[in-house]
Parts: sequence; structure tokens; C-alpha cells
Amino acid sequence: MMSVEEMKTLLKSRGRDVEAYLAGCLDGRAIPSRLKESMLYSLQAGGKRLRPVLCLSCAALCGLEPHKALPFASAIEMIHTYSLIHDDLPAMDDDDLRRGKPSNHKAFDEATAILAGDGLLTDAFVIMCRAPLAADVLLRAVAELALAAGASGMVGGQEWDMIYTGRSQVSLEELRGMHAMKTGALLRASCVCGGLLAGAEEVALRALGDFGSALGVAFQIADDILDVVADTATLGKPAGSDAEQGKNTYPSLVGLEKSRELARAQADAARAALADFAGQEAEFLRALADYTVTRAA
Amino acid sequence: MMSVEEMKTLLKSRGRDVEAYLAGCLDGRAIPSRLKESMLYSLQAGGKRLRPVLCLSCAALCGLEPHKALPFASAIEMIHTYSLIHDDLPAMDDDDLRRGKPSNHKAFDEATAILAGDGLLTDAFVIMCRAPLAADVLLRAVAELALAAGASGMVGGQEWDMIYTGRSQVSLEELRGMHAMKTGALLRASCVCGGLLAGAEEVALRALGDFGSALGVAFQIADDILDVVADTATLGKPAGSDAEQGKNTYPSLVGLEKSRELARAQADAARAALADFAGQEAEFLRALADYTVTRAA
Repeated sequence: MMSVEEMKTLLKSRGRDVEAYLAGCLDGRAIPSRLKESMLYSLQAGGKRLRPVLCLSCAALCGLEPHKALPFASAIEMIHTYSLIHDDLPAMDDDDLRRGKPSNHKAFDEATAILAGDGLLTDAFVIMCRAPLAADVLLRAVAELALAAGASGMVGGQEWDMIYTGRSQVSLEELRGMHAMKTGALLRASCVCGGLLAGAEEVALRALGDFGSALGVAFQIADDILDVVADTATLGKPAGSDAEQGKNTYPSLVGLEKSRELARAQADAARAALADFAGQEAEFLRALADYTVTRAA
Repeated sequence: MMSVEEMKTLLKSRGRDVEAYLAGCLDGRAIPSRLKESMLYSLQAGGKRLRPVLCLSCAALCGLEPHKALPFASAIEMIHTYSLIHDDLPAMDDDDLRRGKPSNHKAFDEATAILAGDGLLTDAFVIMCRAPLAADVLLRAVAELALAAGASGMVGGQEWDMIYTGRSQVSLEELRGMHAMKTGALLRASCVCGGLLAGAEEVALRALGDFGSALGVAFQIADDILDVVADTATLGKPAGSDAEQGKNTYPSLVGLEKSRELARAQADAARAALADFAGQEAEFLRALADYTVTRAA
């Protein structure tokens, strides 16, 4: 077993690799300076870099040297970052703060924020194509990621979120379906793409997909719980702000205790999905699944 | 030489192929119905389908059967359509009408319009990857298109447009640079990608790039001229609305006559770029370049 400290050390170290790559990912490109600043502002706003670390680690689990997956993994973080910028827009969640700093449209302006999001999303595909891997492997991973990030995945989940926000009757099934698209699809694809880049077999890809899906649900429930129980300093936004925005969350639907149970069950399912894998990378991913829910326990 | 009528017939016929493909491009996908409706609303709003037709025709010029380039070409139209939806948003040009119909955020709502754009952009990459072509060829075309559509291309051009709008002093060079990114990059890439999909040699790719770049400038100047001289019925929006929005245009900078001269020179440059190509496809592309400016003559 890997200790929480060892897990955190590897998480941080891989996160730093991603941040180093992201810092230079727009170098040498003729981008209007205000737009470039705006893109980098959000790219460099911190966060655990969970999605790219999952991609790197699943690639390593399947035998690829992580640095070969670094451009692709970093591109996933660009896509995640664009989604945060657009979600914060006045027409969406209208959030003034993101990770304790002014959200992109507050720090710049609304037009620039929309374009920074569009640019990060589009340029993510430029970066993805750069990975030093066989074209057929890379193309399949690009298609997988685009599908997860698109209208039947992350973007569709945000549309459901908009539709459900403020509605008083949302079932647990609807909430789960919305999160499976909004958060789950990209987390799942981050894992699957790691395997794809490493040329993993179908059976391994399915295991990685199951791991990512379960981790995604666990992660979302934990996030909902943290919004209720954590303080503003931890969240970077006022605690309870989801509820204030009329968001339906796991705690608001089933209460805190039941939410914790659901999160725990999903983390266990994530661990179980990797039962056939051994070694340090598998231990890391299992420890990461545990950590996802213990931080909200 | 190909007559204007023959050219228009082929343009229409290829445009219809693209529209037929686009009508089914979201089939079988679990997309929230309101979002899907919104995406299809703008995808099916008409237009000449110039970019995908250029892609199909440049592919055909270099020896590929056009139907093999159809998914990729249609994906380019998805990207063009997303850019129109986002450009019309209140924070951008704030246009209530697009091609004589309510713009997307007027027909639906602002959040859905932002997401419809995000969805079309992302899913364009899903569609692109579907083309029945060799992975290395396809991957290079995907990278080329993403670069043209991203922050150093189309998205960057829109940022410049926002910065320049309302500014009284914009030079012809700045205007040209803005359009080269905002309109030119995607038109150019549509041509180059057609060649790439067909496996064309570097010298042919350069010729296609020069053709697309010159055509892009000609097209933009003609569009500016039409905004001044055409009537509302033709434009689908009030004539002179660019000027009202404080947009800098070729006519506002150098006058109508000089604008027509510049457009003509660019159409001639586009024709010249294809000097080494013969046959029906080359004739079609040359006739198309002419038509781009004669419609505004």
C-alpha cells in the first residue's frame, strides 16, 4: 500500500510537470497579448491538475513513460480550464471568484473570457497532436477525448446543470446523469486516454474507464460535501455558494451522511476496477481514489 | 474556363452534400434536446458552405474522391458555425439577427448559445477523426485546422476585432492582420487540409495555402463592401450595420473604389496561385475566386 504522504508527493510532482509544460504551451505563437494573458491567467490559477495526473498515471500504469503522455495530458487540463472559464460567465453560474481569485471575466472582460475559453479548447487539440506517439494511437485518443468533452459529454452536462439549477424537483438519477456528463466524462476519458496512448488492450481500457467513472462520481459527491462543510479559505469561494445559486447537490438531495456513504462506495468501486493491476502506479491510483473521499469525510 | 452558372451549380451541389452530412452529424448521440436543437438551428441556417466546399474541392483537385473528405469538410463548417454563434453574443457583437433569423442566443438563451458553440467546436473534432483515411494524414490535417481555428488564428482575430471596434485609428495593416486571422486562417486551412487529406506534396500544399489566403482577403473585402451597398433582404441584417457597430472596414478606411481594386487584386492572386493546376477542379476554384469579388462589384 502507498501512504497518503507518498501519494501526495507523487501527485504534486506530476502536477508540477504538467504546470511546467502548460507554462510554455503558448510560446512562439502570435496570440494577441491580452488574450494570451487571459488564457495563461486561468491556466496558471493552480488546482491539483487531477485530470492530467490521471492521464499520466494511467499511461504509466500501462507501460508508457509518463513524459511521452505529457503534451496530451496537459491538453486535458487546457480543456478543463476552458470549461471553468465558461462556467463562471454571467450567463452561466455568474461566479466572481475562482480559487480565491477573480474569475476570468472579472479579471479581464466577458468577450476576452469567452475567447480565452474558445482558444484553450481549440489549442488543446493543437497540443494533443504534438505527442511523440504513433499517429493511429494518438488519433484514437483525440477522438475519445473530444467525445467526452463535447455535447454528449462535458458540454451537455453543463447544459443539464443550467436546466436543473433553480428547479425544485431533481431526482438522484438526474443528478447522477448530469454529473456523469459534466465531470465524469472528462475524468473517465483522462484515464482511458492514458491507456490508449500506452497502447493498452481493450480489457485494460475498460478497467481504466470503470476506474475513471467511479472516481468521477466520488469526486463530485466529495466536492458537493466540501461546499457545505469547508470554509471560504479552503474553497476559494463562500461556503454554501452552490446552495445559494439554487444548485442541486448530493447533500441537498440525500443529506450529508448518505452522501458520504455514496462517495465511499464509489471510491471502493474505483479501487476494485483496478484489481488486476499491481505495482506502484496501481497503488498510487488506488490511494488517489481513497484520498478523493477522505478529504470530505 | 468554367462559366459562372456551372460554377454555381457545382458550389450548390457540394454545399448540399455538406448539408446532408451535417443534418445527421449528431445522430445517435445522447445530447440534451435543447442543446442539440440549438446546435442544429445554427448548423442548418444556410449559407454557401464555402469553407467545406473549398476543402472538398481542394481534396478533389489533389486526386481524392470528395466523399472521403466529407466528414472533415463538414467539421470545418461546424467550427465556422460555432464562431458565428459566439461572435453574435451580447458580450461580443451583440447581434440579434443572423442570416435574417434570430441569432442563436435570441432563439434560445445565452447559456445555451455559449454551450452550443462549445459543443459544435468540440464535436467538430469527433467528426474530423471519423474520416476514412490514414491516421497520419488525418492527424496532420487535424493539427493544421486546430492551429488555424485557435488563439493564433480565428479566435485571436476575433479578439483583435473586439479591441479595434470603436477605436478611431486603425491602420490598413492592422485591419488586414485582423482579418487574416479572423477569416483568412480558417479559409486558408480549409484549402490546405483538402490537400493534406489527399496526400498532396509540399509544393501543392503551399499553392493551396496561397490560394486560400488570397481568397480569404478578397472574400473579406467583398463582405465589407456588400455591407455598405447591399440591401437588408440580401444581407439578412440591416445594411450598414458594421459601421453602426463602430467596426473598421475596408470601405471606411480606403473608400469603396479602392476597396474594389484591392478585392480584385486578391482574386487575381488567388487565381495565380493555382497556375500549375489544370482540369475541372482548378477551373471551379478559379471561377469561385472571381465570383467572390464580382458579387460585390
